[in-house]
Amino acid sequence: MIKTVVLGNGNLATHLCQVFEKNNQILLLQNYNRKGEPIINCNVPVTSTISKIVDAEIYIIAFNDSALHDLSDFKKLNGLVVHTSGATDISVLKDFTNHGVFYPLQSFNKNISIEFSKVPIAIEANSVANEKLLIYTANAITSKVYTINSEQRNALHVAAVFANNFSTFMYTQASEICNEYKIDFSILKPIIFETISKLETHLPNTIQTGPAIRNDQKTIKKHLDTITKVQQKEIYKNLTEAIQNYYGKEL
Amino acid sequence: MIKTVVLGNGNLATHLCQVFEKNNQILLLQNYNRKGEPIINCNVPVTSTISKIVDAEIYIIAFNDSALHDLSDFKKLNGLVVHTSGATDISVLKDFTNHGVFYPLQSFNKNISIEFSKVPIAIEANSVANEKLLIYTANAITSKVYTINSEQRNALHVAAVFANNFSTFMYTQASEICNEYKIDFSILKPIIFETISKLETHLPNTIQTGPAIRNDQKTIKKHLDTITKVQQKEIYKNLTEAIQNYYGKEL
Repeated sequence: MIKTVVLGNGNLATHLCQVFEKNNQILLLQNYNRKGEPIINCNVPVTSTISKIVDAEIYIIAFNDSALHDLSDFKKLNGLVVHTSGATDISVLKDFTNHGVFYPLQSFNKNISIEFSKVPIAIEANSVANEKLLIYTANAITSKVYTINSEQRNALHVAAVFANNFSTFMYTQASEICNEYKIDFSILKPIIFETISKLETHLPNTIQTGPAIRNDQKTIKKHLDTITKVQQKEIYKNLTEAIQNYYGKEL
Repeated sequence: MIKTVVLGNGNLATHLCQVFEKNNQILLLQNYNRKGEPIINCNVPVTSTISKIVDAEIYIIAFNDSALHDLSDFKKLNGLVVHTSGATDISVLKDFTNHGVFYPLQSFNKNISIEFSKVPIAIEANSVANEKLLIYTANAITSKVYTINSEQRNALHVAAVFANNFSTFMYTQASEICNEYKIDFSILKPIIFETISKLETHLPNTIQTGPAIRNDQKTIKKHLDTITKVQQKEIYKNLTEAIQNYYGKEL
């Protein structure tokens, strides 16, 4: 059993405490958070006093990215110290003899339960032994474990902005247009789900459809005439052009 | 039983023939297509001679949008004549006494089977009686029938470009970045699926996350430094700004 302490009580820290508490291969000894607040749906003992943090094999620091740059108060932690940030280099922890990264790639919300076994975890460590320990720990809670370096993790974080944040914003634009014309946004859900389900078996660049890739100028013009909001028109123009450049170069 | 003829043999026409042939409320009499080609996985009699098109209650013209603007060869069709185009006004069929639109909102591919009962169909007709006939026909193959006018259908088509085409292009960008850094794109699939599943119960503008909406300038800068392709950098910048404008105005 891997003796573990989780630091932080945000969305990710909460989910990690919950999943570790139930796990047979991991012994969650303690949670540290600044205010000493209990963890929702989890009985782990909590401390707000750094000097009272107990000895453990792994310390998982699930703070905000900005709080990772000064961890001098925690320098006495004696074990493998890891952070959970996609956007932060492993080197931020270099003052700890044993250090690494334990990055679950999912969008977490304290109040929404999650099936952790489907969450990918990206691992990095400063030694083979530490990497092994992290892989073992990650494997205890998910079947999707990837070993990647800081440069790759940073790139993955950028990729996730496109795949998650920007696509969500596209759905928001669609929903705005539906509102404007008093159409039920639900009418679009089947086509959204169908497209996503194609990603199970197809690369995204093989399933592109629509007026841009067909270079259907008549429809593009009609669409631009339909869109009333300046910013939406800009997005439509820019992405139509980008799709045409992308496939134009390829074809 | 509604006597029906489907015109065309593209992706949508093929799926319509297949689903009509199996349906108990619809009698698929014939398919017309220019080359007289048989319909895949369907035994419907086929003609390529316009004068041999049989009498029916509904003629569903599933041609390309561009072919809808000169239907003079078909002027003798005697029944309810409908097109299936999202982007085309009902008025294109005004020379037919009884006319309408029967628009299934899904991305169809001849070679990929589809569960038609989940496909939304948007209906428009030039009379109450014709609307009733179309609703009856649509209800025979799906539970999702919507009555919308041409202006709404056009807007819906624009919304679908954002929800489907542009989001697909975001996944393509993510996949390009993964390739560049030798990361398995599969690592992103769980977060994509999780986000989409939230759309079942949440409006898309309530689930936006990421550095843009947090106004996390440090991460945004780091991401822009990471992106090597000019066009990708432009998309990142434009959409980050658009998200900030959108939520800035709202907050």
